[in-house]
Amino acid sequence: MPVNLSAPDPSRILPVPGVRIGIAQAHVRKPNKNDLTVMLLDAGAQVAGVFTQNRFCAAPVQLCREHLQRGMGIRALVINTGNANAGTGADGISRAMATCIGMAQQLDLAPEQILPYSTGVIMETLPSERIIAALPAAIQSAAAARWADAASAIMTTDTVPKAASRQVKIGGAMVTVTGISKGAGMIRPNMATMLGFVATDAKLAPGMLGGIVKTLADGSFNRITVDGDTSTNDSFTVIATNQAAHAPITSWQSAEGQALQAALQAVATELAQAIVRDGEGATKFITVRVEGAASSEEALKACYAIAHSPLVKTALYASDPNLGRILAAVGYAGIADLDQTQISMHIGDVHVVQDGGRLASYKEADAAAVMAKPEIQITVHLGRGHVAETVWTCDFSEDYVKINADYRS
Amino acid sequence: MPVNLSAPDPSRILPVPGVRIGIAQAHVRKPNKNDLTVMLLDAGAQVAGVFTQNRFCAAPVQLCREHLQRGMGIRALVINTGNANAGTGADGISRAMATCIGMAQQLDLAPEQILPYSTGVIMETLPSERIIAALPAAIQSAAAARWADAASAIMTTDTVPKAASRQVKIGGAMVTVTGISKGAGMIRPNMATMLGFVATDAKLAPGMLGGIVKTLADGSFNRITVDGDTSTNDSFTVIATNQAAHAPITSWQSAEGQALQAALQAVATELAQAIVRDGEGATKFITVRVEGAASSEEALKACYAIAHSPLVKTALYASDPNLGRILAAVGYAGIADLDQTQISMHIGDVHVVQDGGRLASYKEADAAAVMAKPEIQITVHLGRGHVAETVWTCDFSEDYVKINADYRS
Repeated sequence: MPVNLSAPDPSRILPVPGVRIGIAQAHVRKPNKNDLTVMLLDAGAQVAGVFTQNRFCAAPVQLCREHLQRGMGIRALVINTGNANAGTGADGISRAMATCIGMAQQLDLAPEQILPYSTGVIMETLPSERIIAALPAAIQSAAAARWADAASAIMTTDTVPKAASRQVKIGGAMVTVTGISKGAGMIRPNMATMLGFVATDAKLAPGMLGGIVKTLADGSFNRITVDGDTSTNDSFTVIATNQAAHAPITSWQSAEGQALQAALQAVATELAQAIVRDGEGATKFITVRVEGAASSEEALKACYAIAHSPLVKTALYASDPNLGRILAAVGYAGIADLDQTQISMHIGDVHVVQDGGRLASYKEADAAAVMAKPEIQITVHLGRGHVAETVWTCDFSEDYVKINADYRS
Repeated sequence: MPVNLSAPDPSRILPVPGVRIGIAQAHVRKPNKNDLTVMLLDAGAQVAGVFTQNRFCAAPVQLCREHLQRGMGIRALVINTGNANAGTGADGISRAMATCIGMAQQLDLAPEQILPYSTGVIMETLPSERIIAALPAAIQSAAAARWADAASAIMTTDTVPKAASRQVKIGGAMVTVTGISKGAGMIRPNMATMLGFVATDAKLAPGMLGGIVKTLADGSFNRITVDGDTSTNDSFTVIATNQAAHAPITSWQSAEGQALQAALQAVATELAQAIVRDGEGATKFITVRVEGAASSEEALKACYAIAHSPLVKTALYASDPNLGRILAAVGYAGIADLDQTQISMHIGDVHVVQDGGRLASYKEADAAAVMAKPEIQITVHLGRGHVAETVWTCDFSEDYVKINADYRS
């Protein structure tokens, strides 16, 4: 059951001028399924992305990186479900490239102007012939108002499609930011991959988009975790079509730049959080905040140690205020000179730990009441500095094991 | 259900001259339970230990480290279950020290000659008064042949007591090595802690024991993992009573030193593996071996990434040869310049991956047959160097979540 998440109202997912979306059935793994999505970009769009840090990254991720570096102007994205084209060696690269070549031929472009994305089973051969054969039908069906359709078409084991939109006024023009994401938490048996796509029609000075994409990811997709299993295919791609009727934004520090960044960040964060809300077996949405750190790096170490601990996650599932588990996770987070006597902890508004020990006034019943809710915040203060970080995760139920122990179906 | 593990035959767990063990009921958390164990050492014993790297280490761990550094000659160990005395701040230190003082008074020793160990719930006050009150009864009951009793008395949520013995001839004398351990995998809801104790009557030149304890731990307790949750209380303690009738061993490189080390290592490894075999919800015992690494550090990174991955562990539970999950874990292990095209993988004797891609000859049915067995070896070759490491772990079943989501009982 997704936590406070339902399918978006299609009328609220706004088209982005300069982006058209087409969908088709390529029979990648199963028949009668919309498993192929194309995004067609008008000439002049800027595209930037961040990709999985997994060294066993999938073939399409390798090609996305290469094609973005070429700088020839990205004109189309091709996204298939059903097969991740990961762990497929040199043949996998050839097949991802064949898909790009097939798409380029359809559109009279260079293959380096195409970005490929794959999600699905790992270590099986991508049926690139069937994808290529379905490209004309996908292109044929392309229209601006198909973002909600695309949110459904890129789902693998997600239970709810994920899409979000914002509008913001820039230089007198109304600018749209729309995005979609998929991933039930990077955790399904074989349906590897978190994918996120965000597009805006805002007009940017050349090369600007690359300067913000890492920041957007660090406030959204890089701050979610379900089980710590980093997928081979994770990708976050941002598109600016430059079609809005305002003067180009030349700095992210300008008022216009800040306004656009806020809208992009809001969409990216909503899409990222939706993945956690739809996490396998999730019954609760957990915000882990670590304050008082000496650096962002150590704050994140503590955040992830808490967010990945099976003991913490099962306690959250059970609404059991067995909060020593959180302290233990902070203790093994790898902060070398951490002084436990400086640590304090809250669960929701309940103050549990001060100076590394249980507060005399703390009552377990108060923490249990907080933990019974579907959205819970854990706050740990390290007492070492002034840096804070936040990570979003979910709890850990029997259903996680059931789903992931199921044979691939 | 423990995997290929049953309670030891008490007649095969041999006493160690120079060590007597006493047991009593201190009512630490529950009545009518043998929750207090003392080990009394004759004068002249060497003692060395390695302790949790968790920065939130428990009060008794802090005192163990201090007392061993003092070098006054350890004469007794005091071990309680029911309460871990962790996350208890300055009061926890005082109560652990009070236990040492109480024990020292009984035996006419200095408190620094006592090592305290606690295991049980975290973040609750240690009832040191009740422990101190029970010390005379524990001491009164001390006898040499109580190792099997102690193995039961130090259990918390273990389902099987864990003890092992070996004998080895050194300089014409028969030397005994006996040990006990506890821990259902560092993973029970609140019963934190892995504890291991190994004693021998072998005679060592002064100061020698400290030189080997880390090596013993690195071949045993430092190579097991159930869920990656490093406890606040983990301790491994080695005792040499120096009472055997052979000339003192002066080097671990000598024939006698090598023979003794092998016996110590065998006992420590058996005790460590027993913890994994009794891991929460475990149905399979998994050996993860990474070969061809450039360093021990990177080999262990890959081992632990595989051993901690919930996706890998649920696939092992399901006997599902969804082996891309193993490649994905290697990919995110944090080996910065890993080249995926150099990687090969076996599951049991079945060759699955070569040059980073699935082998054409590989059949899933062969891997499924290996995975259906209760003991499974995963071997990954990184193609980077000549270092290998091995880690032992278990699979991940619904029972793990059930057990850990249960409210503390």
